[in-house]
Amino acid sequence: MKVYRNPPQSEWANLLQRPVKDASTLRGVVGDVLQQVKERGDEALKELEAKFDKAHLTELAVSEQEIEEAESLVSDDLKKALKVAHANIHTFHASQRLNLTPCQVTLGVTCWQKAVPIEKVGLYIPGGTAPLFSTVLMLATPAKIAGCQQIVLCTPPNSEGKVNPAILVAARIAGVSHIYKVGGAQAIAAMAYGTQTVPKVHKIFGPGNQYVMCAKQMVSLHDVAIDMPAGPSEVLVMADADSNPSFVAADLLSQAEHGIDSQVVLVTNSESLVTSVQAELDRQLAALPRNEIAAQALANSKIFVLTTDDDMMALSNAYAPEHLIIETKNYMELAEKVVNAGSVFLGPLTPESAGDYASGTNHTLPTNGYAVAYSGVNLDAYCRKITFQHITDDGIRAIGPTVELMAANEQLDAHKNAMTLRLQSV
Amino acid sequence: MKVYRNPPQSEWANLLQRPVKDASTLRGVVGDVLQQVKERGDEALKELEAKFDKAHLTELAVSEQEIEEAESLVSDDLKKALKVAHANIHTFHASQRLNLTPCQVTLGVTCWQKAVPIEKVGLYIPGGTAPLFSTVLMLATPAKIAGCQQIVLCTPPNSEGKVNPAILVAARIAGVSHIYKVGGAQAIAAMAYGTQTVPKVHKIFGPGNQYVMCAKQMVSLHDVAIDMPAGPSEVLVMADADSNPSFVAADLLSQAEHGIDSQVVLVTNSESLVTSVQAELDRQLAALPRNEIAAQALANSKIFVLTTDDDMMALSNAYAPEHLIIETKNYMELAEKVVNAGSVFLGPLTPESAGDYASGTNHTLPTNGYAVAYSGVNLDAYCRKITFQHITDDGIRAIGPTVELMAANEQLDAHKNAMTLRLQSV
Repeated sequence: MKVYRNPPQSEWANLLQRPVKDASTLRGVVGDVLQQVKERGDEALKELEAKFDKAHLTELAVSEQEIEEAESLVSDDLKKALKVAHANIHTFHASQRLNLTPCQVTLGVTCWQKAVPIEKVGLYIPGGTAPLFSTVLMLATPAKIAGCQQIVLCTPPNSEGKVNPAILVAARIAGVSHIYKVGGAQAIAAMAYGTQTVPKVHKIFGPGNQYVMCAKQMVSLHDVAIDMPAGPSEVLVMADADSNPSFVAADLLSQAEHGIDSQVVLVTNSESLVTSVQAELDRQLAALPRNEIAAQALANSKIFVLTTDDDMMALSNAYAPEHLIIETKNYMELAEKVVNAGSVFLGPLTPESAGDYASGTNHTLPTNGYAVAYSGVNLDAYCRKITFQHITDDGIRAIGPTVELMAANEQLDAHKNAMTLRLQSV
Repeated sequence: MKVYRNPPQSEWANLLQRPVKDASTLRGVVGDVLQQVKERGDEALKELEAKFDKAHLTELAVSEQEIEEAESLVSDDLKKALKVAHANIHTFHASQRLNLTPCQVTLGVTCWQKAVPIEKVGLYIPGGTAPLFSTVLMLATPAKIAGCQQIVLCTPPNSEGKVNPAILVAARIAGVSHIYKVGGAQAIAAMAYGTQTVPKVHKIFGPGNQYVMCAKQMVSLHDVAIDMPAGPSEVLVMADADSNPSFVAADLLSQAEHGIDSQVVLVTNSESLVTSVQAELDRQLAALPRNEIAAQALANSKIFVLTTDDDMMALSNAYAPEHLIIETKNYMELAEKVVNAGSVFLGPLTPESAGDYASGTNHTLPTNGYAVAYSGVNLDAYCRKITFQHITDDGIRAIGPTVELMAANEQLDAHKNAMTLRLQSV
């Protein structure tokens, strides 16, 4: 990792810049996939699965029998772990239910919000060699708590036409039963437009490769909402002389192993910690199966040595990390100053991997600096807050003249008249 | 208005279809405007204002003197009305503040959410002959309550380089002081990229013409969040034999006067109401200054006569109206069944115009069917919910083995190791 000592604040933006990926080059190929699925539905999905996943499918829907088979293929230990994680994710997301009470704005004018679940949601779970069954729990659990009526899950099959059994077991634990063997941009198209087999949904959630991300962006322009834009995963670790260098190194590496484009940043006020963390990184890296990926990610990663707590927090807020781990002695004090981050991990015993799997928080979080404007996935993401209002005679008398005057000044006389008629009636 | 009597449910989607506007034809001209502002900043803004608004500006920022001048140009009555409306909007949006409490997920694992304001927000207010000063209150009031540090407002000047005084007065009442004379796609570009004068923001709010909407969509792909996608405004009124036909007609007209593409729908179970509303429409229309626009909008509008309450609500939910006015006798009962709508107005004395101006609810709402997945603007829209977590020895013992097992099964050994080191330490 490259070390920067007290760089002037004017250079931070440049030093913290993330690699720019231009999705526009993908729009041609992704647009073509979207169009095919829109026009030809299931037939196109099957052709595209044969082309991209080498899977020759007769049925797109995962059968009950396949789910039963998956149950027998997943170890009891993993099933138990999935149930513990699901219970914790359920507990935290259920605690996010809102108690919304009506507000008497003025005499006779009552307004309120009601959280209403989005009726139809689509969850995308990537495939590949390391299937992200944890993401099934993260996306499906709040959907069930919210009360979404139709939850559709798409995930690519392998070349034998099978879905990873841990994904199917996680889906069953989370209560999802509509699972389709379709991946990539074609899966996003299927959920955005609907096909003979895959239902159209109102909002699509989940991670994916650059084709999936590009497809989500394209369909979000007109057809369907999406959870958030996305980029490579990232962590910023804040540590001081009191931090455990072995923990800090492990936390940096758990981000670095995701991919060579993973963003890993260490911010500290301690030169001695820099030395000890670098030694630990070397030691731990050697033992990792994915050490080549992690080593490449680390080579692009940065250590900032800054003098004050305020500078450390300002740099973190300027970066707006997806994951922020604060392992300094005064972590609770610094936590108060977090302005931009997706999810924050506090203290020496709170590694990011806790939240990645089983502490209960969601791991679908804003990357690429999007934390300045977006929240991670939470219960809200599956609901809309619809406003309601009710006005009585008193209310009409209280706000009627105001409405009339403002409408007249905006030259909207019919708006005014709708109020005038009520005023005349009370 | 065209009347449809008990059309079969299979035809609803077709009958409720909104006009499709393809923004892609605008992307060339809008993309060019975005690029100019990105590259040349203020200089491009001034050129574009001269071109599109015929305004030759030396300064883009509205001066304190101009605001003082505006104060003297706006009547005391309108100022008073703006203050009443602001107070009500403030009351309702302040009531949306959340009381988020930490959740002990399991022994030693505590997770919580914190609502943190978006630091920098941009508000766009269209100009034109009927300036929407009410929208200033709707967008700026929750931004102030949320605690956004920088609130930027862009609005086009007239050909004399002046901003409508009611907009400036409304901005002052709402507490916004950074106001720039720039409109159209160039205003969206200025707030998305920042120029020498106009600060870059993290999220852009507000309505606009098709160029503004296209620009918002384009910048939302990479650079900045936006409130929501948008289309023409719309209302669905639900009424029965007990409804007041004069109120119903007034409510339909207050939507129809917005523009010839306004969407106006009446749903009823009463043939006699259809007759009486049509007579009232003719009568009220004749008296409206904007009767040509309203008449054109009505010509494209639809009345559905359905037999049951369930059918009426099902049709409304299938349409997902921006505004839903329920004027039937049993309005509270039907309100419970609303699944898709932006804002709901209940009873005979609750016209849409109340919420458009002064009842306290927001009037920036999802149109074009987006209510199936989006909320209107509310306090949430100006905040992110950042998750925090803290784990103790007990917590590590409780969830550590679950994390290790799941990480190992996802082939993420560094994730596992970050937990293993903690488990070994407790």
